[in-house]
Amino acid sequence: MADAPYKLILLRHGESEWNAKNLFTGWVDVNLTEKGEKEATRGGELLREAGLLPDVLHTSLQKRAIRTANLALEAADRLWIPVHRTWRLNERHYGALQGKDKAATLAEFGEEQFMKWRRSYDTPPPALEDGAEWSQSDDPRYATIPGELRPRTECLKDVVARMLPYWYDGIVPDLLTGRTVLVAAHGNSLRALVKHLDGISDSEIVGLNIPTGIPLLYELDGDFNPATPGGTYLDPEAAKAAIEAVKNQGKAKK
Amino acid sequence: MADAPYKLILLRHGESEWNAKNLFTGWVDVNLTEKGEKEATRGGELLREAGLLPDVLHTSLQKRAIRTANLALEAADRLWIPVHRTWRLNERHYGALQGKDKAATLAEFGEEQFMKWRRSYDTPPPALEDGAEWSQSDDPRYATIPGELRPRTECLKDVVARMLPYWYDGIVPDLLTGRTVLVAAHGNSLRALVKHLDGISDSEIVGLNIPTGIPLLYELDGDFNPATPGGTYLDPEAAKAAIEAVKNQGKAKK
Repeated sequence: MADAPYKLILLRHGESEWNAKNLFTGWVDVNLTEKGEKEATRGGELLREAGLLPDVLHTSLQKRAIRTANLALEAADRLWIPVHRTWRLNERHYGALQGKDKAATLAEFGEEQFMKWRRSYDTPPPALEDGAEWSQSDDPRYATIPGELRPRTECLKDVVARMLPYWYDGIVPDLLTGRTVLVAAHGNSLRALVKHLDGISDSEIVGLNIPTGIPLLYELDGDFNPATPGGTYLDPEAAKAAIEAVKNQGKAKK
Repeated sequence: MADAPYKLILLRHGESEWNAKNLFTGWVDVNLTEKGEKEATRGGELLREAGLLPDVLHTSLQKRAIRTANLALEAADRLWIPVHRTWRLNERHYGALQGKDKAATLAEFGEEQFMKWRRSYDTPPPALEDGAEWSQSDDPRYATIPGELRPRTECLKDVVARMLPYWYDGIVPDLLTGRTVLVAAHGNSLRALVKHLDGISDSEIVGLNIPTGIPLLYELDGDFNPATPGGTYLDPEAAKAAIEAVKNQGKAKK
């Protein structure tokens, strides 16, 4: 539509090995499962079927998002578009919970603390020490992030703060040139972006889940406000079912 | 070594669907075969085993090179490095021969004309008309190339001329910052680059073949001259065998 000239597509990566195992992942660089690969390919088919072809791609530095984008673009025959990668689109750093079983953590700390770490807007889990088993302190991909900036744990508020500079400096300029922009990222970096786009309050964002592998289209006006609040999923029925499933995650499994 | 500070790795894509069918491909955007995918993964394993980890990737706009790079980087656990894509690294445009069977072309035009089109430095095949079956005149990925610049056929000399600006403007600056650079491209765009790096004459380049899927390392001095002329294949035995096989291509098959 003429008064919403900008097209932004958000794509959360498909199921990862640790989603499947019910472990806290965060910055740990786990791969997609076979199911996750299929979700990614299906995501690309949805783009192609909708005639919604990305002109440029932005991803995190994590392979589950990168591979999701690669598989989706292959299905949409758009592997050739320019790509930009940034740690600012990474998943939320889960601190000392990284590598821990979600059900065991729930049992150990109780539901109140567990839900606070998982869903509260401004309470991060305990920090993960540099050099610890699931730390990324020695990972060369983060070598250019100064020590004082590199996350050791994050709440969603922290993710919003470190993601927004990339929204303004990396993504908005692409939208302004009229390009259809694909952002392939993670549950929490995309929640952070959606919070910003839709102006969702700190308390309401807690209840928002974004399903994996289903492209979410935002048509934005000249002030980058969504024409349709919450955007439009390219497969609304599947999105609805998946959102319900995510809500039950961590509770349903032992 | 101290007097050859720059590391450049060249990687020719693995077997494509049309390599396997013995058709002239050029700018037609065919996919890898399963064998080609395995070559690409093996290429990445060779990089990892050699501890030769790329810091930045440059590819053509063609999926057989892009997917080769993606599979190799996945095997080397370097999917997160920055990526740049350009038509200037594309395969040689094969003009009116694109889509034609090599053996049938040999039979139709005779060996002298056939070898001239395939291997002479400065004789391009007849141009492919815009809008013809195997033309890319309507392909959106080339929409930013002005009509007078977009190739309709090319000889190797033409490839050298359109590739070199990207060598100077896109690749050399990355080498100068000390990054290990991976270039994932095609038989003829890589021959063009090797011709430049090694100072190979117009007549001698005719006999040079680059095997698929085997990383070729160039260590370059301060003037970008190779420390070892011809570079070093990470699997020299396999490279030697493959070079022989390429030489017989087009002749061996009916």
